[in-house]
Amino acid sequence: MTDMSDAERIVGEAERWWTTSIIDVQPGRIAMRGYPIEELIGRVTFPQMIWLMTRGDLPTPGQARLLEGALVASVDHGPHAPSIAIARMAATCGAELNNAMASAINVLGGVHGGAGQQCMELYAAVRRRTAAGEDLRAAVLAGLDGYAAIHGPIIGGFGHRWHPVDPRTAPLLALIDEAAAAGEIAGDTVAIAREIEAVLGERKGKPIPINIDGATAAIFAELGFAPEMGRGLFILSRSVGILAHAREQMEQGARIKGPMPKSIPYTYAGEPRRSLPADDRRSS
Amino acid sequence: MTDMSDAERIVGEAERWWTTSIIDVQPGRIAMRGYPIEELIGRVTFPQMIWLMTRGDLPTPGQARLLEGALVASVDHGPHAPSIAIARMAATCGAELNNAMASAINVLGGVHGGAGQQCMELYAAVRRRTAAGEDLRAAVLAGLDGYAAIHGPIIGGFGHRWHPVDPRTAPLLALIDEAAAAGEIAGDTVAIAREIEAVLGERKGKPIPINIDGATAAIFAELGFAPEMGRGLFILSRSVGILAHAREQMEQGARIKGPMPKSIPYTYAGEPRRSLPADDRRSS
Amino acid sequence: MTDMSDAERIVGEAERWWTTSIIDVQPGRIAMRGYPIEELIGRVTFPQMIWLMTRGDLPTPGQARLLEGALVASVDHGPHAPSIAIARMAATCGAELNNAMASAINVLGGVHGGAGQQCMELYAAVRRRTAAGEDLRAAVLAGLDGYAAIHGPIIGGFGHRWHPVDPRTAPLLALIDEAAAAGEIAGDTVAIAREIEAVLGERKGKPIPINIDGATAAIFAELGFAPEMGRGLFILSRSVGILAHAREQMEQGARIKGPMPKSIPYTYAGEPRRSLPADDRRSS
Amino acid sequence: MTDMSDAERIVGEAERWWTTSIIDVQPGRIAMRGYPIEELIGRVTFPQMIWLMTRGDLPTPGQARLLEGALVASVDHGPHAPSIAIARMAATCGAELNNAMASAINVLGGVHGGAGQQCMELYAAVRRRTAAGEDLRAAVLAGLDGYAAIHGPIIGGFGHRWHPVDPRTAPLLALIDEAAAAGEIAGDTVAIAREIEAVLGERKGKPIPINIDGATAAIFAELGFAPEMGRGLFILSRSVGILAHAREQMEQGARIKGPMPKSIPYTYAGEPRRSLPADDRRSS
Repeated sequence: MTDMSDAERIVGEAERWWTTSIIDVQPGRIAMRGYPIEELIGRVTFPQMIWLMTRGDLPTPGQARLLEGALVASVDHGPHAPSIAIARMAATCGAELNNAMASAINVLGGVHGGAGQQCMELYAAVRRRTAAGEDLRAAVLAGLDGYAAIHGPIIGGFGHRWHPVDPRTAPLLALIDEAAAAGEIAGDTVAIAREIEAVLGERKGKPIPINIDGATAAIFAELGFAPEMGRGLFILSRSVGILAHAREQMEQGARIKGPMPKSIPYTYAGEPRRSLPADDRRSS
Repeated sequence: MTDMSDAERIVGEAERWWTTSIIDVQPGRIAMRGYPIEELIGRVTFPQMIWLMTRGDLPTPGQARLLEGALVASVDHGPHAPSIAIARMAATCGAELNNAMASAINVLGGVHGGAGQQCMELYAAVRRRTAAGEDLRAAVLAGLDGYAAIHGPIIGGFGHRWHPVDPRTAPLLALIDEAAAAGEIAGDTVAIAREIEAVLGERKGKPIPINIDGATAAIFAELGFAPEMGRGLFILSRSVGILAHAREQMEQGARIKGPMPKSIPYTYAGEPRRSLPADDRRSS
Repeated sequence: MTDMSDAERIVGEAERWWTTSIIDVQPGRIAMRGYPIEELIGRVTFPQMIWLMTRGDLPTPGQARLLEGALVASVDHGPHAPSIAIARMAATCGAELNNAMASAINVLGGVHGGAGQQCMELYAAVRRRTAAGEDLRAAVLAGLDGYAAIHGPIIGGFGHRWHPVDPRTAPLLALIDEAAAAGEIAGDTVAIAREIEAVLGERKGKPIPINIDGATAAIFAELGFAPEMGRGLFILSRSVGILAHAREQMEQGARIKGPMPKSIPYTYAGEPRRSLPADDRRSS
Repeated sequence: MTDMSDAERIVGEAERWWTTSIIDVQPGRIAMRGYPIEELIGRVTFPQMIWLMTRGDLPTPGQARLLEGALVASVDHGPHAPSIAIARMAATCGAELNNAMASAINVLGGVHGGAGQQCMELYAAVRRRTAAGEDLRAAVLAGLDGYAAIHGPIIGGFGHRWHPVDPRTAPLLALIDEAAAAGEIAGDTVAIAREIEAVLGERKGKPIPINIDGATAAIFAELGFAPEMGRGLFILSRSVGILAHAREQMEQGARIKGPMPKSIPYTYAGEPRRSLPADDRRSS
């Protein structure tokens, strides 16, 4: 009925099991997105390579410079950040660098690392409205309502529990403005971000300034990255700080270090001391 | 005896519990290694920032360019690499990007990601000998003996199961030679790497060329990174490929994808089918 | 204004930072949920301890027996399951047992390990309707509609891509029926599960039998566990298989084993080989 | 030349790629170590299943009871333990249960979770000496010397930073003695443990009592588990506490919780504030 043997059919199925457009590896040949690796090494920057791998083609130098600014800005926020604390505690448990990094990166999810992603979704929602001809202010108001319905009243990317003004925002916005002036990006998302900042400030009666997440989200959106990738790029950046802290902690040499010194007890709020019932529970 | 209360003593101990020289975060102020973040954004490259965070000061442009070449070279080796395969399988299980990346980065340990680290230790051992006046060839022979005693006969960083010649090696060595010619690095480690390559080739009677791990190890050693950090830098690089593959797999949309199609059964090599003994094991 | 010093206030805040009702640890004293550990060791079974830790009190022997059946049933589904394959690949990369287990457990999320959780949510939705007096069939039909609206047409816990009849289902349902007959559980959730099975079978015109996830979900729901905990208990069970496979793979000794042998290439579906543009991209 | 086609050869190689003696899965049939799963469910306990999966055959009831005591004893040590703290911090970052558990289990390595493994290696080293006819005291002294040469002066499994007497030790030793009296185990390892305790106490001039790691190590060794598996069994036990704490933290609802409240700053010990050199570092 068929001239192809079962084995050939199975091999064919297996060969299609993993399929990628990212890399072609043959004996003696490696190409990413079509470009031979030997042409890329020494000629493209690391941010250009990140773009090439995740987007499929090379960015312009201006696009790469904007991405680079975002990658530089987010590397670290200190030992009070859970991701950094986890990396350091892991190191005191004898974890190797890759393991300490994995435990830490693993928590850069929807809450810790996802503010930027949610912010990109907000920008995109507003942009769909302005693209359809809606007024910027009206589009922002509608976007904020839609956001609050899903994520609650705190708008990821605006305001900061710690910084009255986030020192990373101004230089990032300056990079965006520069790129927009040079025609490298459209500049419409950063306008949306500033309008959101204005609306939130008016509502609260005090400044709710764009923070690092809101600023990098604007960059990633201007550059055409999908919201999901906002988190991915943040992880590449924060991994640098996680690595540096894990390594520093290893060199400090402490063993099995909990979150706080034992002189500060945690609070036990459970049942008072009690005894097992007299009957042996195992017996039935 | 002391005018400091218990509470003050405990707070003092707690404040010293986490100590870092990497980052200073105060309300409205962030500085890495002393440099205000607002000065770094837009002015240092991402590889310079990686250097600053892990080393404590800024590299020269030539040093940064060499580090960048190594970071670009190692991003990916395709879906047959366990780290990449794990990221893709994780994505089919519904893992989010950070989780897929964590599961994958977690395996970049002593074997998968550690060849470069071991290679750096070999280079360092040889270099200690040549620095003490020993002849290069003699130092390499002694170094290889010491290495084999610990890690066995396969020398990490030389030869490749897949590539007769690793296409990443030549452009990386060219970058090293260029930096050495410009006086940015000493160039003595790359000389050691080439001598090891020569010795191994003579011993085997066929070329055992420097591979990606051996070449990046030479770069990291020339730049003064500790062997342990070789693995850390490799992780930063390979994370890019892991991210790209996890994201691509998510877009392909398969669910719960095992390593091979089910048309290829695994081999069961255990006990033949048997029955439990008649007595109820739970009863005693 | 206050007679409490700043330091005392800070210590108080720190002592309330971590609060738990699970365990009380004092020098020389450990109690879980109020029971001294020295009374628990040797007197409660491991499943009873799992129940105590996650629920706050001890189960009856019948409840513990039912939980134990579910824990036994889910330990493993072989090397084609991504979680098991990941553990084995991790082992070939030199990962230690805890690291191999972590990479694997990490993917037991919404898709791979979450079918049971979604199934518990479906049971609960139907049960809210029957508790409000709705007819079982009507409640099931409404519940299935609600489920499909969120999760799509495939009902987690019913049918199996691999097993025409899941051999784990019958003995699990027998345990449930036995416990219901003994008055240990209400038995209403298993009735819902059987009605769903009947409806799905009628709709498809072929049996869509309850599978392992549907059966253990019925057990966990009958025992009063929250849906989220269904996944947690599954993880405790599957961890056993993950451990066994990681350890077996370590003993087999292979190094850096990808998902398939290299004789089966993956498919590259991307850009054909191309060259970088002539201008040096780094120069601007 | 050969009557087997290339495709058949490749399929054969692929079928041998993953090989296991643990589980046989066929459509409609699942057997662990030869036993059909439908015979195991409801008839073996969870500790018996753990033994079966990791050892290949069923334990006696007495062996299972001893293993169960060890599994019950190690489930938790409170929020000051890094593994528990990591699980709780992960939960505040929005990690799901499997992800929070993975980040935590990942750090149960050589230091945090490995004391028992090292202790088992010490017991085994002493036992090889007594088996060769050496006097118990002499064998212990030699074993301690060998241990200290590798791991330093702190003997894993003896003494405790927190508990003057570990309350878990006595009931575990009682279980061992009971099993030895019943002929279920040889009882020679627990004698070694007690002799080590005596020697350490004499050396230090104060009690250095067997702790939880030393007691469970004695159990695992008496039961014939390899030292590496000591860590694996500990992970299965501690996973219960990790799960309970992750879930409790989720219910408490805090977001992005660091190790300590921000009212306790960490210590910055690095470079004072400084400015970038005037030249643009990007320009060369």
